[in-house]
Amino acid sequence: MLKEYERSPESMSREQRKEETKRYQKGLTARQQPLRAARLPVIVLIEGWAAAGKGTLINDLISEIDPRFASVFSADRALQGSERYPFLYPYFNAIPEEGKILFMDSGWMEETVRGAVAGELDGEECELYLRSVNRFERQLRDNGYLLIKIFVDISRKEQKKRLEALRDDENTAWRVTDADRWQNKEYDAFREAYGEFMERTGDVFAWHVMDGGSKAALRHDAFRLICEEVDAALERGKYNGEPFEEEFPMTEPPRLEDADLSLSLSDEEYKTELKALQKRLGELHNTVYRMGIPVVICYEGWDAAGKGGNIRRLAYPLDPRGFDVYPIASPEPHELSRHYLWRFYQRLPRTGHVAIFDRTWYGRVMVERIEGYCTENDWKRAYNEINEFEEDLYDWGAVVLKFWIHVDQDTQLQRFTERQENPDKRWKITDEDWRNREKWPQYEEAIGEMLEKTSTVYAPWHIIESRDKKYARVKVLRLTVEALEEAIAEREELNG
Amino acid sequence: MLKEYERSPESMSREQRKEETKRYQKGLTARQQPLRAARLPVIVLIEGWAAAGKGTLINDLISEIDPRFASVFSADRALQGSERYPFLYPYFNAIPEEGKILFMDSGWMEETVRGAVAGELDGEECELYLRSVNRFERQLRDNGYLLIKIFVDISRKEQKKRLEALRDDENTAWRVTDADRWQNKEYDAFREAYGEFMERTGDVFAWHVMDGGSKAALRHDAFRLICEEVDAALERGKYNGEPFEEEFPMTEPPRLEDADLSLSLSDEEYKTELKALQKRLGELHNTVYRMGIPVVICYEGWDAAGKGGNIRRLAYPLDPRGFDVYPIASPEPHELSRHYLWRFYQRLPRTGHVAIFDRTWYGRVMVERIEGYCTENDWKRAYNEINEFEEDLYDWGAVVLKFWIHVDQDTQLQRFTERQENPDKRWKITDEDWRNREKWPQYEEAIGEMLEKTSTVYAPWHIIESRDKKYARVKVLRLTVEALEEAIAEREELNG
Repeated sequence: MLKEYERSPESMSREQRKEETKRYQKGLTARQQPLRAARLPVIVLIEGWAAAGKGTLINDLISEIDPRFASVFSADRALQGSERYPFLYPYFNAIPEEGKILFMDSGWMEETVRGAVAGELDGEECELYLRSVNRFERQLRDNGYLLIKIFVDISRKEQKKRLEALRDDENTAWRVTDADRWQNKEYDAFREAYGEFMERTGDVFAWHVMDGGSKAALRHDAFRLICEEVDAALERGKYNGEPFEEEFPMTEPPRLEDADLSLSLSDEEYKTELKALQKRLGELHNTVYRMGIPVVICYEGWDAAGKGGNIRRLAYPLDPRGFDVYPIASPEPHELSRHYLWRFYQRLPRTGHVAIFDRTWYGRVMVERIEGYCTENDWKRAYNEINEFEEDLYDWGAVVLKFWIHVDQDTQLQRFTERQENPDKRWKITDEDWRNREKWPQYEEAIGEMLEKTSTVYAPWHIIESRDKKYARVKVLRLTVEALEEAIAEREELNG
Repeated sequence: MLKEYERSPESMSREQRKEETKRYQKGLTARQQPLRAARLPVIVLIEGWAAAGKGTLINDLISEIDPRFASVFSADRALQGSERYPFLYPYFNAIPEEGKILFMDSGWMEETVRGAVAGELDGEECELYLRSVNRFERQLRDNGYLLIKIFVDISRKEQKKRLEALRDDENTAWRVTDADRWQNKEYDAFREAYGEFMERTGDVFAWHVMDGGSKAALRHDAFRLICEEVDAALERGKYNGEPFEEEFPMTEPPRLEDADLSLSLSDEEYKTELKALQKRLGELHNTVYRMGIPVVICYEGWDAAGKGGNIRRLAYPLDPRGFDVYPIASPEPHELSRHYLWRFYQRLPRTGHVAIFDRTWYGRVMVERIEGYCTENDWKRAYNEINEFEEDLYDWGAVVLKFWIHVDQDTQLQRFTERQENPDKRWKITDEDWRNREKWPQYEEAIGEMLEKTSTVYAPWHIIESRDKKYARVKVLRLTVEALEEAIAEREELNG
């Protein structure tokens, strides 16, 4: 059952409520600047029944806010075009920058509940969605977001009346969808599902059920709630979540010290194997495309370890219509002012496509850790957050491969020197590379910890011995071919 | 007829050609750094017949290039999801940053020719597409881009053979589409249309027809061409096009000095009119949504003229699922390193949606002009480029409205002072605002020129007298209501 949100005191007159609403509305406007100064990002999620007045409420809420600080998310719109992406994709992509407010016209609750009631999601899928939701909300909190969740409640009878009124007006008739009418028919099932959803997702950020029967009361209660929540958040200061570790299915993590860098291939072996593996990969790319399997390939490695050349050999047999290579540099301002995984959500492949990342989200536990670009809580928490992110990719059906392109310090020095001496390659080497090189031991420690804490069975790390670049290229190709073959076989089995 | 691209000299042996190809390939890799240093953006457009080998050629071309410098555009992919946007949308959105190369697996030629041969575009629409293409390519050139255009030619017989071979392999069969088979059937019509397209779009950047019959020759010729073109561009230096003016259908431009800033509304009038107009706008928003009319609303104006409050009153009655407000600040690095209109292409509304811009592309001829953020050629050329951009929006079916929110210097000073004295509003006023204020006469000149040169009949400027903000809000609402009513009436007439 839906709990009742504390109503305005019964004794309050219309006039009083109107006055108070105005006061809170002005209050919200006045809080823009403190929010900005505190760099606090705010998400106001408005869920609720069709025709409950969510849109109108949002228009009221934003009506006095400077458009530079507020934006509106519409699930109806965001879900068009996100069918080929993971569940959280449209929501993660919508999160606001620091100091700004996003108002959401329904979101992850509606998608889950509708899917459940319609039978499009089975029990297991619902559990995965709920898990994703709870992790997402916790990650938002831990990364400093304030999330305010409102559910606008109306009765079956009221909903029916409103849908009929919309339908009877020729200007609004098209807005009443079959899905809306069906919701009214299945009102009881929805009510139960909404209730269960709220019960199971109320721990990190509480749900606030509000009565949509009276527009004036709804406005009043929503403005009041937002002001109160913002004040509390400003008082607490920006939250920076403590690290913690959930359990994930882990593989034996590879260790840098075990890598045998003497591994090599002759020119002849290289040529033969490269050709055969590339041919095979080209075929497999066709198959994963046809089957709609998304593929995420992550490259990390020492400077001058040979990532670029390795990526080129891997990409060569892929159909350009079906893959992208994303070089990841320092974040730009609009990226830096959001959850650090946001810029990777923006680059996820569609089903059937391949995304190759030249450096990745693991920057959080390497360069950002070592250079102090984030807090200790941040990078320590990131292992878990990254495992969650990659598990979501896996649950969506993605193949996730992670390669650490490895060389020893001497090899790196030799390549740095070669680059320095070759006018065509000199630009590839910067002062920063030399500075990073001095931090080799710190990086070694960070890499070791990363390999240990993020080698999950669904997204394992592979150390690629790259003193001999030929060997490294063939190994990456072989691992990729094997992983795709396995995924295709699994999918075929699943499809019978 | 398709012209022949100069083939490799007949006397060249296979071995020689292979050697030379390798040399050019290395040469392209070696040119990465000079391109980066010269901040030169390069687009290599590969058009041609289905199964001509465009994808394979692109993979060859990128195989030795650092993925940080090259990206690939696939028209197949980009056109999915761009149906509700203007013709140039997927292409403009794909343009690379300075110093980077984009390889395009077909683009605006294929879309136009296919549309023409299939009869999906009538003669008039084809002409508009050709005009857009020529303007787009010229704008690219004038803004420093190098565009290299290759058409890969194969015979009807060769195409048939290749399509059959693809079809006979179970791994590739799905890649042969009905459209490909239909092209082979309609080979002659396509040949003529390709020829005409090239003839009519070869003035700014020349077309290079290459024989797709031999993969080795194609590789050789393409590498050679790209190296030669890049060298020539590096030698010329980054092109900065001269300003020039095409003729556009103009309206009588409004003049700042004619604005009557004493215009005002009583509180009573304001309340009544605001309410009525907002109600009407809400209804019209439903209608434009249903009819799929895109709406672009541009706000410019003096600091403290009241843009924010005006926008909020306009947005209030709009359905949040159908509009966005885009505050436009200084460009971020990835925006600054592309054509200045790129970041606005990224924010165009879909059909049926409303985009409200709080400051716009007119920054080019105001702040960028006055602060010297672009060259004199740049801002002088921009009037024409902007007229072209807005004409494309109009041809696509958009309603384009441009408001200059106007106050006098005394009013501005008064509002600045008020803001300074009000702790809740102090953040709204910055040192920059005071500095801009000192440049009032320069801005006045720039605004006058802007109004004069960009008041087209399809995207007219309106001066909004805003000493009385109430008057200004009602005027914007009224103009918007009128424009939407007109557009809806036109559309209804068109649809019979």
